[in-house]
Amino acid sequence: MLEHLTDAADPRLADYTRLRDVELRKSLEAERGLFVAEGEKVIRRAIAAGYPVRSVLTTRRWVASLADVLGPATVYVVSDETMEGVAGFQVHRGALASMERLPLPSTETVLDPAARVVVLEDIVDHANVGAIFRCAAALGVDGVILSPRCADPLYRRAVKVSMGAVFSIPYARMDNWYTGLDELRGAGFQTLALTPDQSATALDQVKMGDRVALLLGAEGDGLSSRWLHEADEPVCIPMSPSAMANGVDSLNVVAAAAIACHGLMRSADLSHQES
Amino acid sequence: MLEHLTDAADPRLADYTRLRDVELRKSLEAERGLFVAEGEKVIRRAIAAGYPVRSVLTTRRWVASLADVLGPATVYVVSDETMEGVAGFQVHRGALASMERLPLPSTETVLDPAARVVVLEDIVDHANVGAIFRCAAALGVDGVILSPRCADPLYRRAVKVSMGAVFSIPYARMDNWYTGLDELRGAGFQTLALTPDQSATALDQVKMGDRVALLLGAEGDGLSSRWLHEADEPVCIPMSPSAMANGVDSLNVVAAAAIACHGLMRSADLSHQES
Ligand SMILES: C[S@@+](CC[C@H](N)C(=O)[O-])C[C@H]1O[C@@H](n2cnc3c(N)ncnc32)[C@H](O)[C@@H]1O
Ligand SMILES: C[S@@+](CC[C@H](N)C(=O)[O-])C[C@H]1O[C@@H](n2cnc3c(N)ncnc32)[C@H](O)[C@@H]1O
Repeated sequence: MLEHLTDAADPRLADYTRLRDVELRKSLEAERGLFVAEGEKVIRRAIAAGYPVRSVLTTRRWVASLADVLGPATVYVVSDETMEGVAGFQVHRGALASMERLPLPSTETVLDPAARVVVLEDIVDHANVGAIFRCAAALGVDGVILSPRCADPLYRRAVKVSMGAVFSIPYARMDNWYTGLDELRGAGFQTLALTPDQSATALDQVKMGDRVALLLGAEGDGLSSRWLHEADEPVCIPMSPSAMANGVDSLNVVAAAAIACHGLMRSADLSHQES
Repeated sequence: MLEHLTDAADPRLADYTRLRDVELRKSLEAERGLFVAEGEKVIRRAIAAGYPVRSVLTTRRWVASLADVLGPATVYVVSDETMEGVAGFQVHRGALASMERLPLPSTETVLDPAARVVVLEDIVDHANVGAIFRCAAALGVDGVILSPRCADPLYRRAVKVSMGAVFSIPYARMDNWYTGLDELRGAGFQTLALTPDQSATALDQVKMGDRVALLLGAEGDGLSSRWLHEADEPVCIPMSPSAMANGVDSLNVVAAAAIACHGLMRSADLSHQES
C-alpha cells in the first residue's frame, strides 16, 4: 500500500528518525523492536531471512524496485528533501525499510551445530562489526558470539557494510562477560585469543582442533586480560618488525579477522583432505 | 608561535575548511599543496617522516601536547565551537595540522628496491585506502602503486585510518592506466590479479616468485578486464559456497588485501627458511 507523505515530522515516519544519531537510534530501536535496512539488496535479504517488514520509506524514483517482495507492507513515498529531513542525511540507496527484530537465539543454539566460530569482545565500531560478519560468512565460519557490550550487528551501518551477512550467519549475545568463555570451553571449543603480541604462537603454527573459537578484541584496547589469560592459547599474526618500529603495531580488527578466518578455513580443508 | 583566533571565517584557517567535503578538499588541497593530519600521534608521524608543518589548529586543552615537536610552526588556538565551525564536524582528537605535500617518487623509484608491492586500481573509499596501507605496512609489503584514479592516501581520513602507515610505506602513482602493468612486468614482477572469481587459482596454490605484485580492484566493480587479462595469473581467496548462495559473493577489498599480504609474507618466510 502506497502512502504519499510530505511532512518529515509525520509520526508515521518516526522509525526512520536521524539514522546517524547512534545514541538516539540505540534507544529508539530497542524500544520499538526494529532495525533499518538500507538499499534494495539488503532489504531483499532481510525479507528472505524472515524479518517482518514494518514499513518502507522511499522516493518516487525507487518505488517500483521492491514492489514484488513487499506484500502488504505500507510504503511511504516522499521527496528527496523529506527523506533527508527524516533520516538526517542524503540516502543514496533510495530505499529504507523498518524491519521487526526477532528474538536472538541463545549462545547454546548457535554453538551446538558449529565447528568454527568468531567471538567479538566489545568491538565498538559498527562498520567493523559488519565487515567481520561479511568476512566470517564468506570464509565459512558457522556462527558469531558477541560479548554483552559489543556493538549491534543490526545497526544500519553494520547491516549495510556486512552486505546482509548479518542475516545469513547465526549469532548470539553472551549474558555474562566474566564467565563468557566457560560455555565455549564446556562445548569443547579450542579458544584462540588473537593478539598483536608477537611473542604469542604464530597463527600458522597453531594446531587447530575440530571446534575452534577465534577471540577478537576491541579496536583500541584489544582483548581484556581476563579473556587473554582464560583462552587456551594466545595467537598472533606475524607483523613486520620495521613497521612496528614505525608505530604500526597492530592490524585493524577486520584485517586480523580475515587472516584468521582464512587460516581456519585452510586448516579445515587440509584436515578434510587428510581424512 | 601561538595565535588565539575566534572567527571561523578567518582566512588564516582556510587550510582547515570543511574537512568532510571531499570535492572541496580535493581541489583546495591540490591548489595549496597541503594535506591534513589529525590527532597527536598522526601529526608526530607526519613530522617524523619529514613533511613540513604549515600550521596547527587546536584548542586550549590540547595545546601543550605537541609543543615539543612543532618548532617554529604557527599554532592557532580556538574554542571547540570555532574548531567545529571551520572543520564542519567535532574534532575528537583535539589537534589538526596542515602539512606540506612533498613530490611523490616515480613508480620506478618505488619498484626498484622492492620485492613485494600492492597495486590499487581505482579504489574509491579513503578509509579502504588507509586500511590497506596499514595492512601492507604491518605485513611487510615494500611499496604501493596507485592507478591514476585511485583515491588519495593523504586525504585526512585515509591518513587517520592508516595510523600513519601512509608515511612509512613508499608509494607512487602511475601516469597511465592503460600501460600501467608494463612497467611492473618490465621490472620482473609477477603480477597476481586478485579476484573473487572462484575459478581462478587459489591463493595458497600460487607459486610465488621473488618479486610479486598483488593487484586489487575497486569496491564495486573489481579489477578492470584489461588488468585481469594482462596480469600473469588471476588468483582467488576461496569462499564458502553457501555464503555465496546467500549473496555474500566477495570479500571487502581490505580483507582480501590482508589475506593476500599475509600469504605473501608467509611464502617469503618459507623460501627464506629453505635457502
Ligand atoms: C587494533 S587491535 C587492538 C590493539 C591493542 N593495542 C592490543 O594490543 O590488542 C584489535 C584486535 O585485532 C586483533 N589483532 C590485531 N593485530 C593482530 C595481530 N597482528 N595478530 C593477531 N590479532 C591481531 C586482536 O584480536 C586485537 O584485539
Ligand atoms: C569487493 S571486491 C569487488 C567485487 C566485484 N564484484 C568483482 O567481481 O571483482 C574488491 C576487490 O577485492 C578483492 N577481492 C574480493 N574478494 C576476493 C576473493 N575472494 N579473492 C580474491 N580477491 C578478492 C579483488 O581484488 C576485488 O577487485
